[in-house]
Amino acid sequence: MPYPDKFTGFQVNGPETWTEFHKNEFQPKPFGDYDVDVKIEACGVCGSDVHTISGGWGEQHFPLAVGHEIVGTAIRVGPKVTLIKEGERVGVGAQSWSCLDCRQCKNDNETYCRQQLDTYGAKWPDTGIISQGGYSSHVRTHEHWVFPIPSALPTAHAAPMLCAGLTAYSPLVRNGCGPGKKVGIVGLGGIGHFGLLFAKALGATVYVISRTHAKEADARAMGADGFIATSDENWNEPHVMTFDLIINTANSFEGWDINKYLSLLDVHAKWVSVGLPEGEDGIKVRNQTFLGNGCFFGSSHLGSRREALEMLQLAADKGIKPWVEEVQIGEESLKKTLLRLEGNDVRYRFCLTGYEEVFGK
Amino acid sequence: MPYPDKFTGFQVNGPETWTEFHKNEFQPKPFGDYDVDVKIEACGVCGSDVHTISGGWGEQHFPLAVGHEIVGTAIRVGPKVTLIKEGERVGVGAQSWSCLDCRQCKNDNETYCRQQLDTYGAKWPDTGIISQGGYSSHVRTHEHWVFPIPSALPTAHAAPMLCAGLTAYSPLVRNGCGPGKKVGIVGLGGIGHFGLLFAKALGATVYVISRTHAKEADARAMGADGFIATSDENWNEPHVMTFDLIINTANSFEGWDINKYLSLLDVHAKWVSVGLPEGEDGIKVRNQTFLGNGCFFGSSHLGSRREALEMLQLAADKGIKPWVEEVQIGEESLKKTLLRLEGNDVRYRFCLTGYEEVFGK
Repeated sequence: MPYPDKFTGFQVNGPETWTEFHKNEFQPKPFGDYDVDVKIEACGVCGSDVHTISGGWGEQHFPLAVGHEIVGTAIRVGPKVTLIKEGERVGVGAQSWSCLDCRQCKNDNETYCRQQLDTYGAKWPDTGIISQGGYSSHVRTHEHWVFPIPSALPTAHAAPMLCAGLTAYSPLVRNGCGPGKKVGIVGLGGIGHFGLLFAKALGATVYVISRTHAKEADARAMGADGFIATSDENWNEPHVMTFDLIINTANSFEGWDINKYLSLLDVHAKWVSVGLPEGEDGIKVRNQTFLGNGCFFGSSHLGSRREALEMLQLAADKGIKPWVEEVQIGEESLKKTLLRLEGNDVRYRFCLTGYEEVFGK
Repeated sequence: MPYPDKFTGFQVNGPETWTEFHKNEFQPKPFGDYDVDVKIEACGVCGSDVHTISGGWGEQHFPLAVGHEIVGTAIRVGPKVTLIKEGERVGVGAQSWSCLDCRQCKNDNETYCRQQLDTYGAKWPDTGIISQGGYSSHVRTHEHWVFPIPSALPTAHAAPMLCAGLTAYSPLVRNGCGPGKKVGIVGLGGIGHFGLLFAKALGATVYVISRTHAKEADARAMGADGFIATSDENWNEPHVMTFDLIINTANSFEGWDINKYLSLLDVHAKWVSVGLPEGEDGIKVRNQTFLGNGCFFGSSHLGSRREALEMLQLAADKGIKPWVEEVQIGEESLKKTLLRLEGNDVRYRFCLTGYEEVFGK
């Protein structure tokens, strides 16, 4: 079978019509020596997809096919590729390039490279071509951002790990999550449920922190050791200065008393936010905000290739089962699925499948 | 000589008349088994003193003698005291009590004990007596917060180390300051100049970050390896992602582009604020604020007894010389000195001396 010259994807034309998907052909960037072409079989649906096409994160390049939780088959590998074999089942996440030469790149911090490019919506510097995501027939990616998928992992379970999973996994392992540690996960959504599953798999005692008790049964079913609802009176008091790490996956600080949340942390312990709110959402802090326990407040961006491989192996070894709802890819189902995601009507991740039916074998 | 029943201090009656000092007798808390009475010989003048008596930090208990950078002679020790000998030259800083029993206290984190009490302005739980600071003849303090002063340190140099010095030293040693590290000190005031001196003594490469070049010559004279003025165009660009640690001693975020400051930090490196602004001063942050380098933003409160002893020994061993202007204690000089401090007219710390002249031998 000849390699395809052009790929096909479900693109959106702009934020005014962000629920209307059009099946278009598009030109990928020129095939490079280190590139891998992946024939896509599944793609998770990430909150980023909605933020991007609905305009919540500001101006974007259209038409655009989003999707950055991709699993498929490597059908073509460049002449210098050593990490991936043709025919292998592989994944691609939210990042697709960095310089691989700077201090950050050489130190497993390629997500913090100043030249990093996203899997969709980024302009390739040499050609001006806009990168297109996994709501498509194929994706062309440098081998460094293509990850072999362990055979024990179902495709629809592996796909959402490549953004949501890695976003939760990286700050956990970088900040000491493990046996004997008490870890909090704020917000039980797509990323939060991976935070809970991975923190448990890493051996920590894990509490989910949510606005109400609505998701408590689900959290317990996923293995949570405890559940804290911030609508309860004095909810923080029994846990003051007892958490070693808190990963915040919530999408907004609206209505928060941040002092109560931070009071949960042990001395010098860390709060790591991984959600990326829209617009001007933020929170005012004073030096005094962090003074009671000398805690630290920060963010984390995805994770490295090394961490992606470790995470997939951990998921395979421990039999981690994310809660995934499979959806047939197509114009109508994309519209319905993204509107449901925007309304938080998902427990806990959508994954698009049935690619052969719309893009062929 | 009999022990004094009452102590004498220069007290302020309230924020409306905060520059008027009255020499009053006051009743210290009852002498406890672990207490040490210190006859004061010198006391540094801290920005906290102004914030407290001028009402900038909110309501206080008056009349009040402030001052928490105290050096003097231990003239009486309780029957259970083992850490301090009568006749020894000792110091007392900004904290004077904690439970010594909780997890924080048992882990060199007594400054984060939920029951900690300040050297001045705190209500002793048993008696309701308000603690009085070092603008006084004596101070009565639990031995854990009384520190022997190494003989090589002049009294007027040791005193300002007990708040300003320790406030800078603790976050440096807790966050890896040492050879091979690039450390930034934001603001060259009382605390900032100690930050520079200690970071250099610990072996780091140290940059001072200031609004203008006005203090560059002083910073270089104190040993700074570099100086960054935030009024220069693109001031951050040559240093993006190169700092391992930044200690922020500035008293306000007014007019700051916080993104430029944080851009200086290496991946996951820490920003630690130690100043405590008045009123509602603060800064709005978003998760995106910390995303470019995954940096962490926090505060630090003083330091532990162990760190105070280490800091004093380091200062003695390395011959560290803070820039101190000595001032005779007294009603008029206090008024003049605190007004100068409020106007930032000090390079870089005032220390009150001449106690015998006003309180007797």
